[in-house]
Amino acid sequence: MSDDGPDVVSLPLDVGLLAPGRAGSPAEEATGDLAFLQALLDAEAALTRAQAAVGMAPAEAAAAVTAAADAARFDARGLAVRARAGGNPVIPLVADLTAAVPPEAAPYVHRGATSQDILDTATMLVAARTLDLLRPDLACLERELTRLARTHRDTVMAGRTLTQHAAPTTFGLKAAGWRALALDARDRVVGVRGALPVQWGGAVGTLAVVAAYRADGADGADGADGPHDPELTLRLLSAYAQELGLADPDLPWHTLRTPVADLAGALALTAGALGKLAADVLTLSRTEIGEVSEGTGGPSSAMPHKANPVRATLIAAAAQRAPALAATLYASLPAADERPPGAWHAEWEPLRDLLRLVGGATRDAVELCAGLRVHPSAMRSNLGLTKGLITSERVTAALAPTLGRKGAADLVASAARRVRERGETLADALTAELAARPPVPRLKLTGADLADLTDPARWTGRAAALTDRALERR
Amino acid sequence: MSDDGPDVVSLPLDVGLLAPGRAGSPAEEATGDLAFLQALLDAEAALTRAQAAVGMAPAEAAAAVTAAADAARFDARGLAVRARAGGNPVIPLVADLTAAVPPEAAPYVHRGATSQDILDTATMLVAARTLDLLRPDLACLERELTRLARTHRDTVMAGRTLTQHAAPTTFGLKAAGWRALALDARDRVVGVRGALPVQWGGAVGTLAVVAAYRADGADGADGADGPHDPELTLRLLSAYAQELGLADPDLPWHTLRTPVADLAGALALTAGALGKLAADVLTLSRTEIGEVSEGTGGPSSAMPHKANPVRATLIAAAAQRAPALAATLYASLPAADERPPGAWHAEWEPLRDLLRLVGGATRDAVELCAGLRVHPSAMRSNLGLTKGLITSERVTAALAPTLGRKGAADLVASAARRVRERGETLADALTAELAARPPVPRLKLTGADLADLTDPARWTGRAAALTDRALERR
Amino acid sequence: MSDDGPDVVSLPLDVGLLAPGRAGSPAEEATGDLAFLQALLDAEAALTRAQAAVGMAPAEAAAAVTAAADAARFDARGLAVRARAGGNPVIPLVADLTAAVPPEAAPYVHRGATSQDILDTATMLVAARTLDLLRPDLACLERELTRLARTHRDTVMAGRTLTQHAAPTTFGLKAAGWRALALDARDRVVGVRGALPVQWGGAVGTLAVVAAYRADGADGADGADGPHDPELTLRLLSAYAQELGLADPDLPWHTLRTPVADLAGALALTAGALGKLAADVLTLSRTEIGEVSEGTGGPSSAMPHKANPVRATLIAAAAQRAPALAATLYASLPAADERPPGAWHAEWEPLRDLLRLVGGATRDAVELCAGLRVHPSAMRSNLGLTKGLITSERVTAALAPTLGRKGAADLVASAARRVRERGETLADALTAELAARPPVPRLKLTGADLADLTDPARWTGRAAALTDRALERR
Amino acid sequence: MSDDGPDVVSLPLDVGLLAPGRAGSPAEEATGDLAFLQALLDAEAALTRAQAAVGMAPAEAAAAVTAAADAARFDARGLAVRARAGGNPVIPLVADLTAAVPPEAAPYVHRGATSQDILDTATMLVAARTLDLLRPDLACLERELTRLARTHRDTVMAGRTLTQHAAPTTFGLKAAGWRALALDARDRVVGVRGALPVQWGGAVGTLAVVAAYRADGADGADGADGPHDPELTLRLLSAYAQELGLADPDLPWHTLRTPVADLAGALALTAGALGKLAADVLTLSRTEIGEVSEGTGGPSSAMPHKANPVRATLIAAAAQRAPALAATLYASLPAADERPPGAWHAEWEPLRDLLRLVGGATRDAVELCAGLRVHPSAMRSNLGLTKGLITSERVTAALAPTLGRKGAADLVASAARRVRERGETLADALTAELAARPPVPRLKLTGADLADLTDPARWTGRAAALTDRALERR
Repeated sequence: MSDDGPDVVSLPLDVGLLAPGRAGSPAEEATGDLAFLQALLDAEAALTRAQAAVGMAPAEAAAAVTAAADAARFDARGLAVRARAGGNPVIPLVADLTAAVPPEAAPYVHRGATSQDILDTATMLVAARTLDLLRPDLACLERELTRLARTHRDTVMAGRTLTQHAAPTTFGLKAAGWRALALDARDRVVGVRGALPVQWGGAVGTLAVVAAYRADGADGADGADGPHDPELTLRLLSAYAQELGLADPDLPWHTLRTPVADLAGALALTAGALGKLAADVLTLSRTEIGEVSEGTGGPSSAMPHKANPVRATLIAAAAQRAPALAATLYASLPAADERPPGAWHAEWEPLRDLLRLVGGATRDAVELCAGLRVHPSAMRSNLGLTKGLITSERVTAALAPTLGRKGAADLVASAARRVRERGETLADALTAELAARPPVPRLKLTGADLADLTDPARWTGRAAALTDRALERR
Repeated sequence: MSDDGPDVVSLPLDVGLLAPGRAGSPAEEATGDLAFLQALLDAEAALTRAQAAVGMAPAEAAAAVTAAADAARFDARGLAVRARAGGNPVIPLVADLTAAVPPEAAPYVHRGATSQDILDTATMLVAARTLDLLRPDLACLERELTRLARTHRDTVMAGRTLTQHAAPTTFGLKAAGWRALALDARDRVVGVRGALPVQWGGAVGTLAVVAAYRADGADGADGADGPHDPELTLRLLSAYAQELGLADPDLPWHTLRTPVADLAGALALTAGALGKLAADVLTLSRTEIGEVSEGTGGPSSAMPHKANPVRATLIAAAAQRAPALAATLYASLPAADERPPGAWHAEWEPLRDLLRLVGGATRDAVELCAGLRVHPSAMRSNLGLTKGLITSERVTAALAPTLGRKGAADLVASAARRVRERGETLADALTAELAARPPVPRLKLTGADLADLTDPARWTGRAAALTDRALERR
Repeated sequence: MSDDGPDVVSLPLDVGLLAPGRAGSPAEEATGDLAFLQALLDAEAALTRAQAAVGMAPAEAAAAVTAAADAARFDARGLAVRARAGGNPVIPLVADLTAAVPPEAAPYVHRGATSQDILDTATMLVAARTLDLLRPDLACLERELTRLARTHRDTVMAGRTLTQHAAPTTFGLKAAGWRALALDARDRVVGVRGALPVQWGGAVGTLAVVAAYRADGADGADGADGPHDPELTLRLLSAYAQELGLADPDLPWHTLRTPVADLAGALALTAGALGKLAADVLTLSRTEIGEVSEGTGGPSSAMPHKANPVRATLIAAAAQRAPALAATLYASLPAADERPPGAWHAEWEPLRDLLRLVGGATRDAVELCAGLRVHPSAMRSNLGLTKGLITSERVTAALAPTLGRKGAADLVASAARRVRERGETLADALTAELAARPPVPRLKLTGADLADLTDPARWTGRAAALTDRALERR
Repeated sequence: MSDDGPDVVSLPLDVGLLAPGRAGSPAEEATGDLAFLQALLDAEAALTRAQAAVGMAPAEAAAAVTAAADAARFDARGLAVRARAGGNPVIPLVADLTAAVPPEAAPYVHRGATSQDILDTATMLVAARTLDLLRPDLACLERELTRLARTHRDTVMAGRTLTQHAAPTTFGLKAAGWRALALDARDRVVGVRGALPVQWGGAVGTLAVVAAYRADGADGADGADGPHDPELTLRLLSAYAQELGLADPDLPWHTLRTPVADLAGALALTAGALGKLAADVLTLSRTEIGEVSEGTGGPSSAMPHKANPVRATLIAAAAQRAPALAATLYASLPAADERPPGAWHAEWEPLRDLLRLVGGATRDAVELCAGLRVHPSAMRSNLGLTKGLITSERVTAALAPTLGRKGAADLVASAARRVRERGETLADALTAELAARPPVPRLKLTGADLADLTDPARWTGRAAALTDRALERR
C-alpha cells in the first residue's frame, strides 16, 4: 500500500503477501472481509425483506434497509476493532446499520434476530458464492482431464509403486483417475452447496421475539391482537431463505453444525483430490523423470535455467493445509448449550481459509492441466530403464503353467539379478538362464517370443478399457 | 493366535485397557486384528470365487480357498511381525494361505491381485461390517431421542449462550436438536456404506495379470487361446463385488482415495454429533445445574457420594479424538504414483481407530439416552435464578412500541442493574423504575401484566412448533 | 473501508473482521503483511550490511539498500499478485528493491541469497518481534495470577471432577495452577525466542555464490584473486545474524525445520495454557455457579441483562484452533530435497495465524485476570449444595480405622443416599444411620465432631502449602 | 491375561497386524497393555513404599503390595471391560490389587490416591521407559549419520529445489543435515525425559487425605495425634518420585498438562526429523534417480524384480500420522475444573500411539542408515543430466562483473534455451552465443575456462566446511 496516507500504512492489513496460491483469485475476493461485510449486510436486508414479504414489516423499511446495506459505506476495520467487546462483528454492525437508515425503518433492522443468525447466514452466503465460483472451474478442469485421458489413452508409461517401477500403465488411465477425483469433488461440492441453510432462531433458537411480533407489520410485540400463528413464523423463515437463495432448515442450527462440517468434508476432499493431481505432476516433472512439465514453469531468482512446477507446488501446499483446517471445523461440532463459548468463534477463519485454499487450488489446477506438456518420448525412454524388468510379472505369469509358480518366480528372479549385475536385458538374461538349465519340455520360447513378452507396451492390461469406462461418467 | 503358551503373557497385546469407550463393544470386536485377518481372508476367497463364477478358475479351487480362509487357523502375531519385511501383512498371509490349500488350488490363491487389492478390500469389509453394527444403534438412539423430545415438548428450561442464561427454551427442542444430528449422522453413514467399493487392480491398477488369464480357467496366461475380452474382466470385477456385498468401482482406487476420505467425513460427523449430545449432558449434569443425570452414574474410587456422567465423558473423549484422525485420512488423499510410500500405510490404524471410537460412542449414546433422567423441577428452579432477567428481551420488545427501542432498552438495563444489586425481581424492579420516571402516556402495565411478561414459561416462542416439525423427519 | 477510493474498496483486504480475538492487538500489527514486507526488506538490508561489515561489499551499497528498505515505499498487494508466478513474494520484491537503489548498489541487492533465505529470515524476524511483544504480556499475566493466588490462598471452593463436586479446594490453588502454566508458556517462549536463527544458504544451502565472491568487496566472483577462505564465509553468516539479533545456525535449515516446529510447540503450549484458564473461567462464570465474573462482561445485541465472559470465550476459541495449526507445521518437517514443493509454502500462513492467535489470547488473558471479580460468597454457598457430601472422602477416612475401610464406605454410602433422598445434611444422616445400627465400641462421635468432619472448610488438605511452594517459582 | 483358553482366540486383540512400523519393536512391548498394567501396579506399589519410607505405613504393607504388583497375575482384558463403569481401569484394578494382598496390607493399597494419580504416573513411567529405549537408538542413528557424512563429505550430487536440479551439493552435507535433525530430536527427548513427573494430588489435587493421615503409619486419619505437618507431605511426594525415578512436580498436574504437551512436541519433532530422512531416501531411491538404495529392499508379492524402500516408507507413514496425534494432546491442555470430562481420557491412546510410532520409526531409521547403499556414480551421472545448466548460477555470477548482472543473465538464459532445444552442453552453447554477439572487451573465456565454470564438481561452495562444522556438534 504505497499511497494511502500515513495511518493506512500502519494498518495490519492482509493483502495476500503470504498466499500466492490464492492471491488475485475470484475466491479470494469472494471471501475477503469486504465480501463478508457485504454478506452480513445482505443477511440483514433479507431479514427485513422477508418480514415485509409476509406482511410483518412495511415495504418501505425493507427498501430502506436494502438500500443502506452496501459494504462500501461501512468501516470494516472499525467494526473489526469494535467487535472485541462482544466477541463478534454483528453487534457494532447493527448499530451502524440502524444509524444508516431513516428513523422509521430503524425498528425493522435486525428485528427478531441474534448476532449468530446474521453471522451464520452470511457465512453460508459467502460459502455459496465461493462454491458457485468453484463449479465452473471444476467443470473446466474436468474437460481438460477428459482431453488428456482421451489423447493419451494408449500412451504407455511406467507405473510406480513405493517409488519403484512396477509395471506399465498409461498416461490416459492416470488422467482418468485425476478426472474421477475431480468429479468426486464436484459431486460433493454440488451436494453441499444445495443444502447450505439460512440461520434464524433468535437468542436461543426458539424464535421467541419473532413469534411475539404483530402479524400486521406494526412495530411491537405481544400486543392486543396477540401473537400470530406458528405457520406464519415458518413461512417467514421460508421467505428469508428464498430471499438469499439458501435452504430453509428444519431447525435453527446454532449448535447443530452439520452445515459447517459438511463444508469441511467437501472442501477437504476437493483439496486432497487436487493434491493427488499435484503430487503426480510434481513427481513426473522431476529432472530425472521429465515425463510432464508445466506449461509455464516458475522462474527462480538465482538460477536462469530453472522452470519450476509452481502451480503444482501451490496446489500441494493447499492440500497439505486443508485437513487440519477441516479438523478444526469438525472439532466445533460438540457445541455446548444454545451458543458455545469458543467453538463457534473458532470456525470463522478456518472455514474461510478452506474456501480460499480450495478456490485458489482449483484455479491453479485448471491452469496446470490446460497447459500441461506431456512427453511420451520420455515415458518410453523411462520404461526402458529397467531393461525389461518392468514386465517381470508378465513373464512370471506366462511361464507359470509350464514351470509352476515357484519355478517361474525363481527363473525370473535369477534373470533379474543378472539384469542388475550385468546390465543385460531381461530377454537376454532369460535366454542365458534357460540355456544354463536342463531343458524344459513344452517350453518353447523364441527370441521373438521373449522380445514380445518383455515389451512394456504389450503389458498395459485393461488400461484402455478402464479409461473408456471411467470417461463415461459425467 | 495359534499358540497360547506361556510367552503369550509377554506379548505386547492390546486388550482395550486404555479404551473404556469401546472395550467390549461390538465395534471393537468387528475391528480387531482377528476381524481384519478374517476380512483379508474373505477378500482372498472372494477373489478366487469370483474367478470361478465367470469360468476363469475351477470351482474346486474356489471351494478350497474358501475353506482354508479361517482366521482361527492363522498366526496373527506372526503375520504382524513378518509384515515388516514388505511393509504389509498380505505378503506373508498369501504365503501361509497358499500353504494351507491343496497344491492344485495353490495357483488360484491371490491370483491376479496385488497386496493392496486385498488390504483395501478387507478394510472396506471391516468398515462395512462396523457401519452395519452402527446403524441399529443409531436407529435406537433416534427412537430414544424422539421419546425425549415428545415427552418434554413443553418442559421449559433456561437457554444458555456463552455460558449465561439468555432466554427460555424447552428440553424438547434440545432433544429434537440432538435427534436431528443423529439423523444427519445416520444419513451420512448410510450414504457412505452403500458406496464402499472392492479393490482390484493388480500391481499398478491396469488388471494386466487378470487380462492375461485364459478365459477357460486353466492356470496360465497369454496362452494359445489368447487373452479374454475386456468385457469378461469387467464382469469379473462385478462378480468380486457381489461376492462381498460391496460396490463395484469405475476404476481401481489405489491412489484415488475418495472411499477412505468419505468414511473419514461420515465418522467425524457422527463423532461430533454425539459429542454435542455429550457436551450438553455434561453441562446439564453439573452439580450446580442438575437438570439431567445419567441413569447409572459412574463410581469413584475415593468418593462414595459421586455419580459421574461417565457415558457422556467417554463420548466427549471420542469426539475430541475423531477430527485429528479424520485429518490424517484426508491428508492421505494426495497419494503419489500408483502406490504411495507412506500415505497408504498411514491410513490403516487411524481408520480403524475412527470406526472403533464411533462404534463405542454410539453404544454409549444409546445407553445414555435410554437411561437419562430429566429433572423438570431443577429446570424450573434454575429458570428463576435471574429473577426474571431471562425474559429481558421479551420485556424490551413489549415496551419498544411505546418507549422506542432505545427507551425500552435503557429502562430494562436500569431495572437489570437493580435486580443484580438489590436482589429484586425484574417485575418489581421495573415497577420501581417506572415509578421513578415521568409517566409515559399509553403505557399501562399492571402488576399482573408484569408478572406475565417476566414469566419464563410464557417466553418459549416457537419451540413447540419447531420440535413438532423436526420430529416429522424420518 | 469507507473512503479509500473505488479500487481499494474492491481489494480483498483482511482487516480482522472475523478475528475479534486479535483485532487491534500489537501481535496483529507485528504479523500483518506490512510487517512481513518490512521484515523481508530488513533481511535484504542486513544481508548487504553484513557483507559490508566483513569487507565484501562497499559501505555505500549497504547504506543505499538500507535506506531503500522501507515497506511504505513498496506495493504489497502488487507483490502478492506477482508472487504467483514463482510461488513466493521475494522474487518480485528483489526486482523492486533493485530498481529502488542507485545503479552502483544494485549488484549488492540480494547478493548470494535465494528467495528462501530472505523469506525464512523474515519469518524468524516476525516471530521474534511478536514473541518480544508476548513476553511482557506473559509477565503481566503472571503478576496478576500471583496476586489472585495470594489473595485467595485460603478461599475455599468446590473442587470438581467430571463436572461433579468432588472435594473442597481453594481458589488460590487454582490460580497457582494457572500461574504455573503461564510460567511454563513463558519458559518455552523464551527458550524458542533465543534460538530463532537467520537463514542463509543460497540456492541449495552450500553458500556457493557467497563462497565465490571476491573478498575485497568488488562485484564479481571466482576472480583473479580467487575465492576467499571458508572462515570468512562463516564470519559473514555471523555478521548477518548479529545485524538482525537472531541466532547463527550451524547449517542452513531450508529443509531442517526445527525452528518452525519449535515455534509450533511453544505457541501451541501457550495457547493451551491460556485455554485452561479460559475453560475454568467459563465454567465458574456460569449463571448457576457464579463464582467469578469478568470485569467487563460483553454485551448482547438482544438481551440487555447479559454480561458474557467474552475474553474467556475468545481465548477458548484461540486454544481450539492452535493445535491444528501446529500440526500443519509439524507435518512440514519431512521436507524433501533442498527445497520441498509445498511443505515450505504450507508453513507461512499457519505460523502467522499461530503467532496472532497467541498474541491476541495473551492480551485477552491479561485483561481477563486483571479485571476478574472473584465471589467467595458464591463459592461458600455452592460448597453447601451437597449438604456435606463433598467431604465424604474425609468422613470415610476418619471412620476407617474403627469400622474398617469397607464398613466406613458402606456407612457413608447409606448416609449419602439419605442425603439425596431426604435432603438431610450428611452430619444428620450419619447420626441417623449410626443410631440405626448396633453400637460400635471405640466409636465416639459427638454432633460437634460430625459438624467438624463434614465442614468443607476443614478439608482443603495441603492446598495452602502447595500454593506457597508453587509461588516460589519465578 | 490369566486365562489362555479357547475363547482367547475370539478376543478382539490387537497384535500389530496393521502396524508393521512397530510390530516386534521394543517400543511396542514397552507400550502394550501389559506394560501399562505393570506401570499402573508399579505406581501403586511405589505409593505404598513411599509412605513406608517416611514412616507413614508399615514396611510389611509396602513389601506385600510390591510383591502383589505383578501384571502377570491380573486379567488385563477383564479390567478393560470393567473400566467402562467408572471410565478408567484404575478403579477395578484397585479392587483386584486390594484382594491380592493380605488383609493387614489392604488399607495401604491406593492410600491417599485418586485414579488419575495412578494412571498419570503410570503413563509417565511408560513414557520414560520408552524414551529410555529411544535414546540408544537415536545415538546409534547419529553414529551412522556421522559415518555417512564423513565418508561422503566430498561426494557431489545434484541439489534439488521444487523437484528440479538447482545447483550441486554433496551427499555429506545432506547426511549432516539428517544428523542435525537426529540431534535436535535427541535433545528434545532428553529434555522432556528428565522432566517427566509423578502425579499425586488426591481427589482434587489438595492431597487432603494424605494430609490427614497419622504420621506414625497406623491406618487412620485426623486422629488424636492430629495430622502431620506439611513438610512431611512434601517429603512423601519426593519419596514417591524417587521410588519411580521420575521428577517431583511443584503442583499436582491433573489439569496442568504441560508434561503431556511436552511429550507431544518432542515426539512430533522426532517423527518429523526422521520423516525428513525418509523423504530424501524415498526420492533418491526412485528408479530414475537411483542415488541410494536400502540395504534390504522389501519384496513384492507379484513383482520379483522389485526392491522397495520399505524402511523409509514405514518411517514416512509414522511421520504422516504423528502431527495429528500431537494435536490431540495439545488440544487436551484446556482441561476444565480439577478433572475434565473427556480431555483427559482423550490423551491415553494418542500418547501411546505417538510413543509407538516414534519408537518403531527410530528402529527403522537405524536399520535404514546402517544398511544404506550410496551410489556416487549415479549421483555423478545425474549431475550431467542438465548438460551443465546446474551451474548456471555460477556462470552468471562469474560473467556479471564484465557483462553486468542483466547482461550475464540474458546470455545464460539464451544459452540455456539452446541447451534445451539442441541438446548442446552449456559450455558449447555459451561459446556459440558469445560468438554470435559483438565481442566484449575484457571477457576472455577459453574452452578450458568454460569447462571449469560448468563443471558441477567445482560448484559445491562451502558444503565441506559446513559439514565439518556441523559434525562438531555432539
